[in-house]
Amino acid sequence: MSISAFDHPFLSGLLGDEEISAYFSVEADIRAMLAFEAALAKAEARHGVIPQEAAQRIAEVCGTFQPDIASLKSATATDGVVIPDLVKQLRKAVGGDAAQHVHFGATSQDVIDTSLMIRLKAVAFLFTGRLYAITAGLEKLDRQCGENRLMGRTRMQAAIPMTVSDRLRAWRDPLDKYRDRLTQETFPLQFGGAVGTLEKLGPKAADIRTSLAQELDLTDEPQWQSQRARIAELAGLLSLISGSLGKIGQDIALLAQAGDEIELTGSGGSSAMPHKQNPVAAETLVTLARFNAVQLSGIHQSLVHEQERSGAAWTLEWLLMPQMVMATAASLRSARELIGNVKRLGATSPA
Amino acid sequence: MSISAFDHPFLSGLLGDEEISAYFSVEADIRAMLAFEAALAKAEARHGVIPQEAAQRIAEVCGTFQPDIASLKSATATDGVVIPDLVKQLRKAVGGDAAQHVHFGATSQDVIDTSLMIRLKAVAFLFTGRLYAITAGLEKLDRQCGENRLMGRTRMQAAIPMTVSDRLRAWRDPLDKYRDRLTQETFPLQFGGAVGTLEKLGPKAADIRTSLAQELDLTDEPQWQSQRARIAELAGLLSLISGSLGKIGQDIALLAQAGDEIELTGSGGSSAMPHKQNPVAAETLVTLARFNAVQLSGIHQSLVHEQERSGAAWTLEWLLMPQMVMATAASLRSARELIGNVKRLGATSPA
Amino acid sequence: MSISAFDHPFLSGLLGDEEISAYFSVEADIRAMLAFEAALAKAEARHGVIPQEAAQRIAEVCGTFQPDIASLKSATATDGVVIPDLVKQLRKAVGGDAAQHVHFGATSQDVIDTSLMIRLKAVAFLFTGRLYAITAGLEKLDRQCGENRLMGRTRMQAAIPMTVSDRLRAWRDPLDKYRDRLTQETFPLQFGGAVGTLEKLGPKAADIRTSLAQELDLTDEPQWQSQRARIAELAGLLSLISGSLGKIGQDIALLAQAGDEIELTGSGGSSAMPHKQNPVAAETLVTLARFNAVQLSGIHQSLVHEQERSGAAWTLEWLLMPQMVMATAASLRSARELIGNVKRLGATSPA
Amino acid sequence: MSISAFDHPFLSGLLGDEEISAYFSVEADIRAMLAFEAALAKAEARHGVIPQEAAQRIAEVCGTFQPDIASLKSATATDGVVIPDLVKQLRKAVGGDAAQHVHFGATSQDVIDTSLMIRLKAVAFLFTGRLYAITAGLEKLDRQCGENRLMGRTRMQAAIPMTVSDRLRAWRDPLDKYRDRLTQETFPLQFGGAVGTLEKLGPKAADIRTSLAQELDLTDEPQWQSQRARIAELAGLLSLISGSLGKIGQDIALLAQAGDEIELTGSGGSSAMPHKQNPVAAETLVTLARFNAVQLSGIHQSLVHEQERSGAAWTLEWLLMPQMVMATAASLRSARELIGNVKRLGATSPA
Repeated sequence: MSISAFDHPFLSGLLGDEEISAYFSVEADIRAMLAFEAALAKAEARHGVIPQEAAQRIAEVCGTFQPDIASLKSATATDGVVIPDLVKQLRKAVGGDAAQHVHFGATSQDVIDTSLMIRLKAVAFLFTGRLYAITAGLEKLDRQCGENRLMGRTRMQAAIPMTVSDRLRAWRDPLDKYRDRLTQETFPLQFGGAVGTLEKLGPKAADIRTSLAQELDLTDEPQWQSQRARIAELAGLLSLISGSLGKIGQDIALLAQAGDEIELTGSGGSSAMPHKQNPVAAETLVTLARFNAVQLSGIHQSLVHEQERSGAAWTLEWLLMPQMVMATAASLRSARELIGNVKRLGATSPA
Repeated sequence: MSISAFDHPFLSGLLGDEEISAYFSVEADIRAMLAFEAALAKAEARHGVIPQEAAQRIAEVCGTFQPDIASLKSATATDGVVIPDLVKQLRKAVGGDAAQHVHFGATSQDVIDTSLMIRLKAVAFLFTGRLYAITAGLEKLDRQCGENRLMGRTRMQAAIPMTVSDRLRAWRDPLDKYRDRLTQETFPLQFGGAVGTLEKLGPKAADIRTSLAQELDLTDEPQWQSQRARIAELAGLLSLISGSLGKIGQDIALLAQAGDEIELTGSGGSSAMPHKQNPVAAETLVTLARFNAVQLSGIHQSLVHEQERSGAAWTLEWLLMPQMVMATAASLRSARELIGNVKRLGATSPA
Repeated sequence: MSISAFDHPFLSGLLGDEEISAYFSVEADIRAMLAFEAALAKAEARHGVIPQEAAQRIAEVCGTFQPDIASLKSATATDGVVIPDLVKQLRKAVGGDAAQHVHFGATSQDVIDTSLMIRLKAVAFLFTGRLYAITAGLEKLDRQCGENRLMGRTRMQAAIPMTVSDRLRAWRDPLDKYRDRLTQETFPLQFGGAVGTLEKLGPKAADIRTSLAQELDLTDEPQWQSQRARIAELAGLLSLISGSLGKIGQDIALLAQAGDEIELTGSGGSSAMPHKQNPVAAETLVTLARFNAVQLSGIHQSLVHEQERSGAAWTLEWLLMPQMVMATAASLRSARELIGNVKRLGATSPA
Repeated sequence: MSISAFDHPFLSGLLGDEEISAYFSVEADIRAMLAFEAALAKAEARHGVIPQEAAQRIAEVCGTFQPDIASLKSATATDGVVIPDLVKQLRKAVGGDAAQHVHFGATSQDVIDTSLMIRLKAVAFLFTGRLYAITAGLEKLDRQCGENRLMGRTRMQAAIPMTVSDRLRAWRDPLDKYRDRLTQETFPLQFGGAVGTLEKLGPKAADIRTSLAQELDLTDEPQWQSQRARIAELAGLLSLISGSLGKIGQDIALLAQAGDEIELTGSGGSSAMPHKQNPVAAETLVTLARFNAVQLSGIHQSLVHEQERSGAAWTLEWLLMPQMVMATAASLRSARELIGNVKRLGATSPA
């Protein structure tokens, strides 16, 4: 399993993030998908669409069910989505009369998009905390070195002196805004059935959707299966975060090259030149910023999502979104470490 | 002047937009830049930094001054920005004692970024109106054909029937949200001086900035010269708009290919096959969506904006942003026409 | 006409290129399209498909015909392509019996793609010369300073000293390869008729195509109207050129920041800081490299060119390709100037 | 290990490729890196730079050495590259006097870039075979249905009838060209030492490089550590392949939507609509084409590779290149299956 540097056996040391990658493990995805199926059964039972005992049985099985992954894999090859086989396996595990009530009225996209939202919500919360830690680190640096003189530089040339505080403000302000935006972000349920009309649930459809959203602690919204702005906006925010951290990385790499206005610990070694201290984390921030800027283009291509469900556009999201989350996670992790490794910024002679 | 299809002598018939391109004419840019210089002089005079008479003289000249464009062009070749020469020309036109008070405390980026914001603010207002016109067109279509049956299609296959209203909701909802977001968008002044510290204005800097923002009817904010999230967020919104319109275009092109569920007027002819009716506007919406999705990547690359001002990153924005605005304008214009040309959607036999 | 910086009244001083932009003027496009129509008539007459006198009359008119641009523009708005109206106007100008023989057996894409190839061929020749001039400049620099010591730098850190020659080789080698590739590039005719089968020309189709290619001095190849690899490969080569020049620009900007290993003339001024010497051309090379890297993504999106002709994918090329050519032109022009402005590289103390 | 769909436990059924992913396993990478170290020792011994016995000992150990992956991971976190720790571990395993001769004169990038080339060479060979299988499948289809009538379609509209052969030629021709290009592709050694000058090997440097290239069965070329055109060109070819296969996929999806001109087996099921036959493989080809078109942009951003080695630009390649290879592999695999599943194309009534 080494295709992606984000979970590569050794590159993940540099580019991975264990805390966040857990949310994109197959286990986490399956748990979230089963949580959807359990909550759906409960919501439908509450509104009298399926029997209470069936819902109870389904929820019980969903709590512990371990699907056959090899079967999921081979079915996904044919179906393009994992859900038909997962539901088939789940029905078998549920057994009896309850089996027929599994997944009633729902479609693959309901389960997959909702599983993503459940996990993105948790990740967003963790990112908020990391942004807080980074700005706290920058504030600490400001208290330590804020009044130091730093040469203001424009167009790669020395311009006029300013203070370290001036530079730190340009680093910190965007991060404060992103934290606010992450905090306000809503994470909606996706629930539409075959073509978005919940046609099997009749007049109870809206109430069941509301109950289902409550059950899963997600926002209740009409289906958005072919309207992918929500995904694109979130991806945009991820790329803003890694982009602003990339600016910090680029600045620190340039400071490290000049050498006299920064003191940095924890830098990397070289196989050919043991004397070197490479600003590895700073460069990595630039890499991750450019990576996300590239991926975002693909997410926006996916907005051209034809008809009621586009296999082509939706599958493209699957290839891009987990990696954008991971790049942002690695960027936040690296930035926090890098800021912590700055021992001095600027010169103590007065500005 | 034919490099860009957006203002190409004949391609602009398809891809241009006269109303919006006016805001990106050199005249509009120069007028906005001179408005900045006039407002700056007034704000500085109000706070006693330059003489009232100087401010009056500067404002007066700025109102009518026509710079020598050939000189601006040749100076931009060397300086990388137009402002040093524009200010030089303006000082000469102002003459006398007042000349030295022109552009006091400001830098190139203050003028150029602020000129962009003045014009984007006007454009955003017009886009709001266009989004309104499109959703009104969709609502009219809904009243006409909403109850018609439309085959719901997923993964390029007929799924189950639904109503035209169901499809129209998926087209309309995102546009309503974008209109709200455009309405709430703020457009800030950029004012920071050489390295963002307004060092020449001393303790009066913040007050002058507030006055300047009021004078220009922009939001008062600390300088954001190296923090480009604002540009990236606005670019993201533009691409969301053209992306959602691209989805409508793709849907209509697919309906037109099948042929029985849509009746469309105003379609295009062919030089080889006079019998054809091509869904040109629908295809154009797809083109423009993909175009903006591509450009957005470059705008996010520009977030890695090193130090206090990056010539490389900033200039990249100049190459991308006007075209994203134009692509969105053309997309809104085409979508409005296309919706107006839909004579029937779906089939009248009951769902 | 200011949407694109490449032909903007003042930004084109920095980012334009008069020699190359002439090939993308509407006049050059129309002349090349009329050259196609004239050559087509001649080739068809040679093979007895249309009368010799008709061909002569058509060729004669094509030599001087000035179409009504306003009419082309309004027709392009509806048809999505300019050719139906251009042919209509041309037929009227030709008049008499000959009129019906204009454009016989051809389609819009034949004319438009071939016009592009005619002009790209000329541009490629000029680019070859520019690459030669740049490598000549680098060789001159090598003779002047090649033995100077230059600090080798890896990961933004001083590594071990090397010579200026070592750095110059890394700058020059890719350019030599691109020049060879440009020289070997072929530029094919596009000729397929309505759906690529030249169905109106029957058994003479292949011979007429060969004659037409000879007439236009293009390579004879089967139609490639939905196979856009040729466009994508050429775009890739353009981006390689601007990318490698961007690396030179980045290196020079970093040398200019450090300051002691380069002496540069012709740099840019600042409106706020008259003392500065900004490495404007170096930064511009980075901008143009990143710009082309972004656009290339869109050209590759256009490879998904559905059926016999995709309006959506083809129109996207029109928005991207002229700008990639111009970005490359500006990059070559700036690089040549920049190399000429390097007065010293490295330090004269022996390595 | 589920970040990338290419090696995801169940999504890899749809998007993975076991044959090719083996070349991007950590084992394959380590074996190739150790092959480099063994070959380097042999080449240096042949030219008298290190003792024969040392080379023998090093080669022997490299043949079986299993590094401590956890240590590699934690070292990569700090160093930004795996090599310093791998060499350290290898030296320890080699032991004795020979230990100091491990990796002599080489640098991290020599090992990592060369390991990539070794594996890309093998992959290119396999891709050639797959392209051959696909074109063979298309030829078989041509023999079966070539004379059937197919409606030629332009701009999403029926144009005029043609034959299935006409469409198949547009699908096949680009693939033939890519196969030729893959066959001609060269895969060079990267060998430059700390800053590309092989400064530790003195006058024997070029001879050792030649021997090393022979030993590894790679092309002998001067170092290209900061000249990334080779990577970008190969990435471009990968995206051309997946792009042309994406065009086939789009065409088949459109045929499947209309329904009467294609008969397809092996299509996918739906969790909500058991009656549906989704053209999953066709859609997947579109997805993979768009994915590679997006990634290519990042590879071209990496051409701005500053100085003698850019941590930022190089690391970006690591994030993109394995995935582009995998997307191409999955695209080739899916296309072969899809072509095999086409039971009929076109209509048997004569054109």
